[in-house]
Amino acid sequence: METSIGIVTPQRMHFAEPLALQNGSTLAGYDLMVETYGELNADRSNAVLVCHALNASHHVAGIAADNPKNVGWWDNMVGPGKPLDTNRFFVIGVNNLGSCFGSTGPMSIDDATGSPYGARFPVITVEDWVNAQARVADALGIRRFAAVMGGSLGGMQALAWSIMYPERVGHCLVIASTPKLSAQNIAFNEVARSAILSDPDFHGGDYYAHGVVPRRGLRVARMIGHITYLSDEDMATKFGRALRRAEALVDGVANGDATAGAGDGYRFSFDVEFEVESYLRHQGDKFAEYFDANTYLLITRALDYFDPARTVGGDLAKALAHTTAKYLIVSFTTDWRFAPTRSREIVKALLDTRRTVSYAEIDAPHGHDAFLLTDARYHNLVRAYYERIAEEVGV
Amino acid sequence: METSIGIVTPQRMHFAEPLALQNGSTLAGYDLMVETYGELNADRSNAVLVCHALNASHHVAGIAADNPKNVGWWDNMVGPGKPLDTNRFFVIGVNNLGSCFGSTGPMSIDDATGSPYGARFPVITVEDWVNAQARVADALGIRRFAAVMGGSLGGMQALAWSIMYPERVGHCLVIASTPKLSAQNIAFNEVARSAILSDPDFHGGDYYAHGVVPRRGLRVARMIGHITYLSDEDMATKFGRALRRAEALVDGVANGDATAGAGDGYRFSFDVEFEVESYLRHQGDKFAEYFDANTYLLITRALDYFDPARTVGGDLAKALAHTTAKYLIVSFTTDWRFAPTRSREIVKALLDTRRTVSYAEIDAPHGHDAFLLTDARYHNLVRAYYERIAEEVGV
Repeated sequence: METSIGIVTPQRMHFAEPLALQNGSTLAGYDLMVETYGELNADRSNAVLVCHALNASHHVAGIAADNPKNVGWWDNMVGPGKPLDTNRFFVIGVNNLGSCFGSTGPMSIDDATGSPYGARFPVITVEDWVNAQARVADALGIRRFAAVMGGSLGGMQALAWSIMYPERVGHCLVIASTPKLSAQNIAFNEVARSAILSDPDFHGGDYYAHGVVPRRGLRVARMIGHITYLSDEDMATKFGRALRRAEALVDGVANGDATAGAGDGYRFSFDVEFEVESYLRHQGDKFAEYFDANTYLLITRALDYFDPARTVGGDLAKALAHTTAKYLIVSFTTDWRFAPTRSREIVKALLDTRRTVSYAEIDAPHGHDAFLLTDARYHNLVRAYYERIAEEVGV
Repeated sequence: METSIGIVTPQRMHFAEPLALQNGSTLAGYDLMVETYGELNADRSNAVLVCHALNASHHVAGIAADNPKNVGWWDNMVGPGKPLDTNRFFVIGVNNLGSCFGSTGPMSIDDATGSPYGARFPVITVEDWVNAQARVADALGIRRFAAVMGGSLGGMQALAWSIMYPERVGHCLVIASTPKLSAQNIAFNEVARSAILSDPDFHGGDYYAHGVVPRRGLRVARMIGHITYLSDEDMATKFGRALRRAEALVDGVANGDATAGAGDGYRFSFDVEFEVESYLRHQGDKFAEYFDANTYLLITRALDYFDPARTVGGDLAKALAHTTAKYLIVSFTTDWRFAPTRSREIVKALLDTRRTVSYAEIDAPHGHDAFLLTDARYHNLVRAYYERIAEEVGV
């Protein structure tokens, strides 16, 4: 029976040993926010690391102790009796370095200067995150993960784990991800970054000192992102060309018939006219309230840079040649951000280098966002896969 | 044999009679910039109106008299011996009301106040443009066009012409267009508008008085637009993940191998790193130099509002029931802004109401931009279609 994890409290882990970064610099001490669910078994074989995507955090599942409305971003996937069953597995969520949910990032005070890092926070990579996460594992006494799992950018981290620490990863679950961004993917990131960088309130990244945030830039950046998270079909179903009318707003989404109001006249202005505009503005405004602009820059850049085949002549199979994990790769039919073809590139490279890989293409209407949503076929697949892992590790 | 039209000079036409607009307001006098190519024949039966899209103008073909580098936006399509052959047809280009290339628009002085219209310029529609263009036809003594033709937003104008003035349109050529924007299309427009509206230099649309232009917003708006004009495949071919290096820049596009530089290291910054970033920034900067922000708002809104079936219960066949034109509808396989499915909606509605329609889906890699590019199959098709029209009108 599925139940919720209930109330969870994160822990702040401090790492005093300097971390060498891919850009050549070194981060002195740093903190990472960590949440865990379930119990580590006696032989420490049942640990699963869940890696987060752009705007998520260590708070993967359960209800935050300090805010009963703050439910973990993958709560439908992780919990007692859920596909990743915390009755059997010990699950770990880590807020990545450079993020803005408590781990050391641009908002943190740099001990060397006594001021926030701001623009001086180093440009980090997926590989840097993996190295930082490996120290969390060390601190928790976990030599080898039963699985490392993630969606989107989280999937890139899982893939990088299997390449960088092959002996430490039993299974690698890469969901709605890609082996590297396309030119179009980078282009969307670049437009989002341009919106932030050109906001007069950005102040070269040191807006903290000015007591402002580049809210306008963040808002536009998030609006662009949102278009790429949803499928064209999903947007058509949710909003169509329905006009925005004052009534019936629930969290920015029209409550009711998407064609309601279609008989009304246009208002001939640049204010919100269509439901889809209202939705995007609402999402943009919400995001600008809680997300740090420097973190947005850093994380989109980490996405751009990820390309594990780059140092081996672009040959992904070669990059994967020393892996030992078994893989589950999942994509969603209407995901146009990281389309199924991108997942198939990973599958092909794994097969080319004779790895064990399962691949599923889930027929789902919700675009890239599908990896976060409840879908019986998707969840049953992940559940079945974890049951196999549970048997292997004996839990 | 194809030759160029040579040097052309636009004419400014003044219209003193007020124009009633769809938003309920009336525009007193107004000017329209017009270019014509070829000769109107004795029975005035060989006139073709070419309608422009978002950022184009009356300058359809030939070389602008005041700037030898300014070649018309559809010069590969219109000229002596070209698909729309100016040896046979009299071709007219009109800069739309509200645009920023000489026709009355937000930058123009409102005689009522002695100041630029700015934010007070009325929100115009495709139908308003068609009504204004009809007066140009009247002034030139053209009762009926052999054809009205346009791509993208220009195609919407052609379609609207055939609905609003059925007796005045012999043939209607609708290229890379759609019967109405999807929610995703509106979403992209809304993000672009948000970038402009939230630029502190926008000043509620009255930036002229402040001696500034909302350059940052325009730049981001254009960058977003550009992503939707190119196909994913085309971007991959043109730019891939090639890194930007200082050398080899020709008009913002890498000169040479798109994989060049792939062996070099990342620079770990938010400056231009990838070629695709350089291209987008360059396009954005160029655009912000010459295009008016208020016009961008107006024209994207006109796109959003276009929906000829809206007043007849969403039934496009019904909206087309009183047309008498013959139609050529053309789409391009990799156009994801206005995909072939959108053109097929028009074709289906025309067939449902028993119109004569030819439809071609051109296999082309260049996305939405394909309608502006030279492609033998596409141009031969349009050429053949105009040969049929030439026979009909006896030129």
